[in-house]
Amino acid sequence: MIPLSEIREQLDEIDSQIVRLYEKRMELCAEVGLTKIASGKKVYDKEREMQKLATLSQMASNEFNQRGITELYEQLMAMSRKLQYQILTEHGVIGKTAFIGIDSLDKKGARLVFQGVEGAYSQAALHSYFGEECDSFHVQTFRDAMETLEDGLADYAVLPIENSSAGAVSQVYDLLVEFENHIVGEIVLPIRHMLAGLPGTKIEEIECVYSHPQGLMQSARFLDEHRNWQQISVANTAIAAQKVLKEQKKTQAAVCSEYAAKIHHLEILKEGINDNSNNSTRFIIVSNQKVYLKQAGKISICFEIPHESGSLYHILSHFIYNNLNMTKIESRPIEGRTWEYRFFVDFEGNLNDAAVKNAIRGIREEARNLKILGNY
Amino acid sequence: MIPLSEIREQLDEIDSQIVRLYEKRMELCAEVGLTKIASGKKVYDKEREMQKLATLSQMASNEFNQRGITELYEQLMAMSRKLQYQILTEHGVIGKTAFIGIDSLDKKGARLVFQGVEGAYSQAALHSYFGEECDSFHVQTFRDAMETLEDGLADYAVLPIENSSAGAVSQVYDLLVEFENHIVGEIVLPIRHMLAGLPGTKIEEIECVYSHPQGLMQSARFLDEHRNWQQISVANTAIAAQKVLKEQKKTQAAVCSEYAAKIHHLEILKEGINDNSNNSTRFIIVSNQKVYLKQAGKISICFEIPHESGSLYHILSHFIYNNLNMTKIESRPIEGRTWEYRFFVDFEGNLNDAAVKNAIRGIREEARNLKILGNY
Repeated sequence: MIPLSEIREQLDEIDSQIVRLYEKRMELCAEVGLTKIASGKKVYDKEREMQKLATLSQMASNEFNQRGITELYEQLMAMSRKLQYQILTEHGVIGKTAFIGIDSLDKKGARLVFQGVEGAYSQAALHSYFGEECDSFHVQTFRDAMETLEDGLADYAVLPIENSSAGAVSQVYDLLVEFENHIVGEIVLPIRHMLAGLPGTKIEEIECVYSHPQGLMQSARFLDEHRNWQQISVANTAIAAQKVLKEQKKTQAAVCSEYAAKIHHLEILKEGINDNSNNSTRFIIVSNQKVYLKQAGKISICFEIPHESGSLYHILSHFIYNNLNMTKIESRPIEGRTWEYRFFVDFEGNLNDAAVKNAIRGIREEARNLKILGNY
Repeated sequence: MIPLSEIREQLDEIDSQIVRLYEKRMELCAEVGLTKIASGKKVYDKEREMQKLATLSQMASNEFNQRGITELYEQLMAMSRKLQYQILTEHGVIGKTAFIGIDSLDKKGARLVFQGVEGAYSQAALHSYFGEECDSFHVQTFRDAMETLEDGLADYAVLPIENSSAGAVSQVYDLLVEFENHIVGEIVLPIRHMLAGLPGTKIEEIECVYSHPQGLMQSARFLDEHRNWQQISVANTAIAAQKVLKEQKKTQAAVCSEYAAKIHHLEILKEGINDNSNNSTRFIIVSNQKVYLKQAGKISICFEIPHESGSLYHILSHFIYNNLNMTKIESRPIEGRTWEYRFFVDFEGNLNDAAVKNAIRGIREEARNLKILGNY
């Protein structure tokens, strides 16, 4: 057997040769980029890449290496494309993005919509993003808010997308796919739930409790101590408070914010009943215009995956090979197609980055119905 | 400018050299594998790999190539490790997995537990997996089922994990992390919801409807036509049917299965009210023993991700570089740590595969609290 130290010397020698060849290869790919500027040819030539992969993998002497060479060259060719997009950008040949770059959101005089009633957490998020003096109104459902935007009756909608304890607000994810509205901003709001009832209500009297399903889920531990209470879902935590006021029964209570309890004249029976004391919700700012902030650093996209073995693996490789940092992956079932999923991915970047263009181009080629939800 | 055809000739020449060097490198890595068998050394030597990456990337002449070389070698070294695990396995040096391989599940005489009451969809799943004649009993909550298993009062629990319309049953995901129970099987059951009430109930009379939150979500379109109905969440669709029978009010209805309606003597007021006619639910079979079927082809794991840029990207690269097909990714917030997630990944493979060992070893090194939920 060859001693380990000797094998390692040989490995080091091979590796320095590979590095030299890699550098030479990248130089040549830069040259290819320049010829493409002159000829107006596309950077991504799928057919040529497939041919190259087939030729190279056939050169390998066993199956393990055939697969290895294929994987290696998928990565090498992704790098070459990224370099070429960079060169194109440096030479001013910038692919026009469908999104229009703006310097800042037009907050002044904007009409704003949120879901719920006065006192909803969404309203608090809206105030904190647009200021207390803004011009806002509310609608009954998330869908209503999306339709209001689509009709141009509001400039921006403020919608909850994710809670730190309960997870994604799946309905809002689904509506982002259905409507041609786009995310232009986000804001995180701390959430603190109260148990609120009519003044003078005793906790022992309560028989049923109203809240948004997320409010109920986020207070599961407290509610588990009262298994005899009926848990009734309503569209919003502030609507729950309004309902308790309206029906005037001491057997009813709401899980809502301190502000919602106050404006609906309820007494706080128990403070901070959320399981997690660091509970917070992320809200998105949505517009019907296809715009993005020029300095934006986060992109949200969604895509569907064809029902084939290995497809998710291939699509995620576009993020990996382009060195793009995914901050979140969420999957949602696609309606009408059993066990097929739509993926929502958040990653760091700007639509004008070469690596982002490269990844999006590749994903568009392999996934179904890629949609850029926003860059903000 | 050099003509494109000439550049391509040079590229082809470089590529055939890279392929030759790749093959030579793999041969040497196989030799390293053999010395490791003799010396009993670990395949994965993180420190050595980090040193190698630093040395090689310093050889590159610009930042783009430094990053490129690093990525390329992360992949190459993952391949080398995979090859070494293969060689170890071929030489009978098989890492002992913590899971004990079994040839088949001991279904005969097994005590089975499900959540809900008689007529629950879980009971139907249980019958379809273990046969109609099996010995089963029910408990009130998913947690109760997990505790029953932990105490050894049941051999297997049958729990819903995912619905094709409504998505993940997040509570069951969270319980899989909390308890030391393992997935040993799965079964998919078609789901068809009925609106059921006391005999003679008219749809116009209904004021409130009971179901499991998933039952309500899966019938959202039908229920949206009746916005005046209160939607009340209970622990199980069969409990909803039982409640309507017990309370004897024609203002109440349940969203439940045909079977649950039948055994609770309810009349079906409207058939198949689920939004999606292909609605189905995937159930898992859970055991308190750390066992796996020797011919198992699917692995479920979960892990937490440290709050650092690029960490998800790095962890997913272990699947990509080992050519492992992920079939599902689910993220859940980690309680008490805002915006940190626990990921649940399903992928194809067996705990004894070299690629699986390689990936799990790497993920364990980089993620926090890796847990293998089962191989089935």
